[in-house]
Amino acid sequence: MSLAEAEQSLGSIMSELGRNARIGARALAIATPEQKRTALLTAAGAINAHRKKILAANAKDMEAARTKGISKAFLDRLELTDARIDGIIEAVQTIAELPDPVGTTIAEWDRPNGLHIERVRTPLGVIGVIFESRPNVTADAGALCIKSGNAVILRGGSDSFHSSHALVECLLDGLHLAGLPVECVQLVPTTDRAAVGEMLRGLDGNIDVIVPRGGKTLVARVQNEARVPVFAHLEGLVHVYIDKSADLEKAVSVTLNAKMRRTGICGAAETLLVHRDVVKTHLNPIIDALIAKGCEVRGDATVNANNPLTETATEEDWRTEYEDAIISVKIVDSLEAAIAHIEKYSSHHTEAIIAEDPIAVDKFFREIDSAILLHNASTQFADGGEFGFGGEIGIATGKMHARGPVGVEQLTSFKYRIRGNGQTRP
Amino acid sequence: MSLAEAEQSLGSIMSELGRNARIGARALAIATPEQKRTALLTAAGAINAHRKKILAANAKDMEAARTKGISKAFLDRLELTDARIDGIIEAVQTIAELPDPVGTTIAEWDRPNGLHIERVRTPLGVIGVIFESRPNVTADAGALCIKSGNAVILRGGSDSFHSSHALVECLLDGLHLAGLPVECVQLVPTTDRAAVGEMLRGLDGNIDVIVPRGGKTLVARVQNEARVPVFAHLEGLVHVYIDKSADLEKAVSVTLNAKMRRTGICGAAETLLVHRDVVKTHLNPIIDALIAKGCEVRGDATVNANNPLTETATEEDWRTEYEDAIISVKIVDSLEAAIAHIEKYSSHHTEAIIAEDPIAVDKFFREIDSAILLHNASTQFADGGEFGFGGEIGIATGKMHARGPVGVEQLTSFKYRIRGNGQTRP
Repeated sequence: MSLAEAEQSLGSIMSELGRNARIGARALAIATPEQKRTALLTAAGAINAHRKKILAANAKDMEAARTKGISKAFLDRLELTDARIDGIIEAVQTIAELPDPVGTTIAEWDRPNGLHIERVRTPLGVIGVIFESRPNVTADAGALCIKSGNAVILRGGSDSFHSSHALVECLLDGLHLAGLPVECVQLVPTTDRAAVGEMLRGLDGNIDVIVPRGGKTLVARVQNEARVPVFAHLEGLVHVYIDKSADLEKAVSVTLNAKMRRTGICGAAETLLVHRDVVKTHLNPIIDALIAKGCEVRGDATVNANNPLTETATEEDWRTEYEDAIISVKIVDSLEAAIAHIEKYSSHHTEAIIAEDPIAVDKFFREIDSAILLHNASTQFADGGEFGFGGEIGIATGKMHARGPVGVEQLTSFKYRIRGNGQTRP
Repeated sequence: MSLAEAEQSLGSIMSELGRNARIGARALAIATPEQKRTALLTAAGAINAHRKKILAANAKDMEAARTKGISKAFLDRLELTDARIDGIIEAVQTIAELPDPVGTTIAEWDRPNGLHIERVRTPLGVIGVIFESRPNVTADAGALCIKSGNAVILRGGSDSFHSSHALVECLLDGLHLAGLPVECVQLVPTTDRAAVGEMLRGLDGNIDVIVPRGGKTLVARVQNEARVPVFAHLEGLVHVYIDKSADLEKAVSVTLNAKMRRTGICGAAETLLVHRDVVKTHLNPIIDALIAKGCEVRGDATVNANNPLTETATEEDWRTEYEDAIISVKIVDSLEAAIAHIEKYSSHHTEAIIAEDPIAVDKFFREIDSAILLHNASTQFADGGEFGFGGEIGIATGKMHARGPVGVEQLTSFKYRIRGNGQTRP
């Protein structure tokens, strides 16, 4: 097959996926809550029943990845174990039991002319999910889309192809048993990277929104090439600010958790801002606790002068999402200076203030425009599960449509239903 | 000046507009409700006080347009009169008195670990409004953006430049008196069409959303070129369906109003679908009423056989938004067939069902995915004012973020505020 033929063939495969997805989306949009619940509970059962098959498919992916000499961290993300499959089953079950968002009345009111207006949730349509190596995204994203009445086109990394395929088979079992078309969940049947480009162009209007789940390279490509809306999950350059009114114990434990609980997640803190008035009392206890846990601390001149175990931060440090056991620390003269620093360097994902003064908290909450603001709590709570959403397809850092954790409600749109009795407009 | 110099100069003008808008947006985001109200009421007063100046500016635009031999309909949209200025003042005052959306709590809940989560409205940031000849859009869009805490960059058609400029001056008076930066409202200071392209590329991240207000050519250009989110207002290919359970009187009066009240607005009906069971009773009364009002009726074979005054509809008619006194009429065998026709041809803007059978209404409401669905009421109610929004910047036909009339609430995003007492994540 020539390159031109291959491209044509990919184009027609992808177009067909798009047309099928639209058919699936129409059926799913009018499916009953019970059908969707049945589909998901059945899928969870199928994952349990086909555990061996899924592990065997994953072993094939793992072997191929090892042969390619792929990094240990990558292999860890790719690997499925019995415990991880248990986690996947539990996640699908949790999503199955969430309240059905579709058809819910969000608002309703009467007009003076007697019209009754209702705003009700509707699915978005077809969601394209582009992810990398984690096979669990297949099940999570598939389940969240089914629950919210959306068809999904899944494009996993080539390294997880067999694992994803085995998990999709289980979702299809669920759809089939619930009397829903299997076109509701489709896995792109090729590992050709050009398939991503086709999805980003929207498959002739048959993809309504793209959700990229992956590293900076993927997200940057999506931002550049997408011709359809994107729920972008950009980096989390997350700040913790220790106000002059901060309680020392909370300052230490929250900062430690915000940085070190898991360093690779987007809610992990990257920069610590400390009010000058509490340098003498709060700075060293926090830094010492971080260093004791194995964190490298890069500070400004005041920090370095106060603690000989710290390295020197450069301008670049204020702009860096380490995703590692490193933190930058800066002393600020005031709450206003902290807010200005965050305004300049933050990725507007998540920020926390440690303070006992309610006026400082209110100012922080009012003036900082990040998706998630926390008072006296760890930034690692930036997570759909921790919000009580029962699952998330990602954390949106844009301001359009969804912001913060994207759960089933955020995967919906709405329409207006207006009831009258013959009203005409004057 | 060479072309390259002119382009560079346009680019730097536009970049500066963008940077200024961002500064304005930051100030406006934390402005008090009272400041925004004061700004708008003062602006309304200034429009009244500067009435003569505004009319003189408009006369200049009108004279230039007449010299260019521009159409009568266009001149009508461009013209300002004392009565129209009264309308503009009233609209700005109405928007001033709307509840302030910013900071409003949309939802709040507690988590088992004691965290209290609040979702509160925030402005979107900077809104770029691209419109054609109607000068009143300057005041409406400016006022809606100020109220919702957003800075706005207005790019009006070159033909309305002087009128728009005079109205913007009044908005700036309001901002100034309320202690808000005048950068909150900026009019693109050039009639160079390349300025639109610059806005569609987002002015280096300084435009958060584009609102196009204009005809198909503008909307198509925006859809093709925009690299930032768009609240697109596509065509309204609006349907009225007469169910077999329809009340004859409602069927006649609602259809007549839906088509003929104003034929040029997006909520005007374009296609009438009539259930076969009521052809004998309902069809001719509706058609005769339309024809008596001067409407051309293009029907399918059954319609033609029943009424000799009708023309013959072609496939093209089902796809046409006439924006004129023409309607296409088709007989359908069932509610399902009506839904299938709408699914195939509708622009998903607005559709109405005339029926007395609640089961038919529920099915129509559940299965059709258009922004606005009406029961026994005219499609011309598809309007932010009629929804009680106090004004709209357009009607969104997309499903992301805003759908239907875009009022002050739809011009906001949200953020999460989480209050804790030292919680760390296990």
